[in-house]
Amino acid sequence: MKIFTTIDEIRAWSNEHKRGGKTVGFVPTMGYLHRGHVSLIEASVEENNYTIVSIFVNPTQFGPNEDLDKYPRDITKDTETTKNAGVDVLFVPLVNEIYPKDYSTFVNVEEISDYLCGSTRLNHFKGVATVVTKLFNICNPTKAYFGQKDYQQAVVIQRMVRDLNMDLTVVVCPIVREADGLAMSSRNVYLSHEERAQSLSINISLKMASKLVDLGERNTVNLIEKVTSILEESDLISVEYVEVVDVKSLHRVDKIESRAVLAIAVKIGSTRLIDNIILEV
Amino acid sequence: MKIFTTIDEIRAWSNEHKRGGKTVGFVPTMGYLHRGHVSLIEASVEENNYTIVSIFVNPTQFGPNEDLDKYPRDITKDTETTKNAGVDVLFVPLVNEIYPKDYSTFVNVEEISDYLCGSTRLNHFKGVATVVTKLFNICNPTKAYFGQKDYQQAVVIQRMVRDLNMDLTVVVCPIVREADGLAMSSRNVYLSHEERAQSLSINISLKMASKLVDLGERNTVNLIEKVTSILEESDLISVEYVEVVDVKSLHRVDKIESRAVLAIAVKIGSTRLIDNIILEV
Repeated sequence: MKIFTTIDEIRAWSNEHKRGGKTVGFVPTMGYLHRGHVSLIEASVEENNYTIVSIFVNPTQFGPNEDLDKYPRDITKDTETTKNAGVDVLFVPLVNEIYPKDYSTFVNVEEISDYLCGSTRLNHFKGVATVVTKLFNICNPTKAYFGQKDYQQAVVIQRMVRDLNMDLTVVVCPIVREADGLAMSSRNVYLSHEERAQSLSINISLKMASKLVDLGERNTVNLIEKVTSILEESDLISVEYVEVVDVKSLHRVDKIESRAVLAIAVKIGSTRLIDNIILEV
Repeated sequence: MKIFTTIDEIRAWSNEHKRGGKTVGFVPTMGYLHRGHVSLIEASVEENNYTIVSIFVNPTQFGPNEDLDKYPRDITKDTETTKNAGVDVLFVPLVNEIYPKDYSTFVNVEEISDYLCGSTRLNHFKGVATVVTKLFNICNPTKAYFGQKDYQQAVVIQRMVRDLNMDLTVVVCPIVREADGLAMSSRNVYLSHEERAQSLSINISLKMASKLVDLGERNTVNLIEKVTSILEESDLISVEYVEVVDVKSLHRVDKIESRAVLAIAVKIGSTRLIDNIILEV
């Protein structure tokens, strides 16, 4: 596995393979890789001739009071993980390689970036859309892989790729969970023993909502109430939002008619976790 | 010469030639082509294996009270002009091919888009940056050509290409002028006979400024005063701005130290014209 830190290196490598008619899969990450990331890498390795993984903790997607500085990092373990998963190139740029002095260009997917997580994480998706545009232009992939756990992110990236006519395919892979149901996240490492125990109510509440829909519930106000009440039984959890929205527009829906997504954001102690489930009738 | 109207056609054509190791030059225009455009096309034909010209009057770069609806169009003459200039593909998309329903993604080069023309034409450069990003992603050029007449536009596009790591070279070509000195612009057709006569003071004032710099003037306040007073001698001209700015940052400069750009925007009747000159010591 090659490790590149400069834009020139990775671009030359990718362009050479693309010109040779090969396909290149790309998995952008912020590192501290878990089995969720590995599932994206496995999909890419399966579907493409070559796979690039990037590790870049992107400062422009963190707010001033968020966890940029303490975001977990373990490049040694990540190198092992990617090598074992069959990655061809690991791209690990420094911040000033990505954001030079007097950097000033931003990509923003308006409206849908303001809902859900966007309502509290101002400019978060602008930072995500910008860095992903840059990484796409640098790595020139055939396909790029994102996890459904960050549902809004996947929708924002899909809309951006369509709107800006980017010449690649976005693949969204299912959520990977711990054995007890907690969605994999690099931030799970922040949880204390007790917080980790209480975090289980997130997945329990999602499964309950899905069950209620199976039993005939269509009214989203009722579903949201039920989910919220389950979450609020845990004294360490504070609910940021529980919403049922259209799978593409992210507009709130009153009734579940075909497919909708139930999305949750909570804080457990000082750790912010998100999760979601597709509700289908 | 091929004429394409869909994104799929032009992308397939360009990608085929790029994969074959050929270079593709690209000249994005809003049509109603004049000798300024032709000079860009000639540079592209000279420097690349193939040349694409796009004609698209981009709605997102016009303000609500601007001249989108009456912007001059002559696709028959433009087809002749491009064919004669050796263009390989003319790309003429409809508006809904470029901006589908629920379009919502925009590229913005912050700060430098707000100076000069950006201070009165709100969101103009956001519209320009967005459509140029799209056209670059669609046409996948090796080099793209812009005129120095739209100086701020050229700087915004260069910054965007650098910031977003777009894999192409931006070429800026010199201003082409009528025999009497008026900078070529599709909007010159709006001018009445009398307005056309008075428009000459724009170039006269720029040449005067350059002359003063040659004679030792370094103070930009004095230069701006002199240029403004020449423009204001013409009763049909109202000055929007006269500024001397850094060639890259577009920040105002007090003293001309090496290179700066003197940029002018005026209204002659209801027609808005811009022009500029590089001042070098």
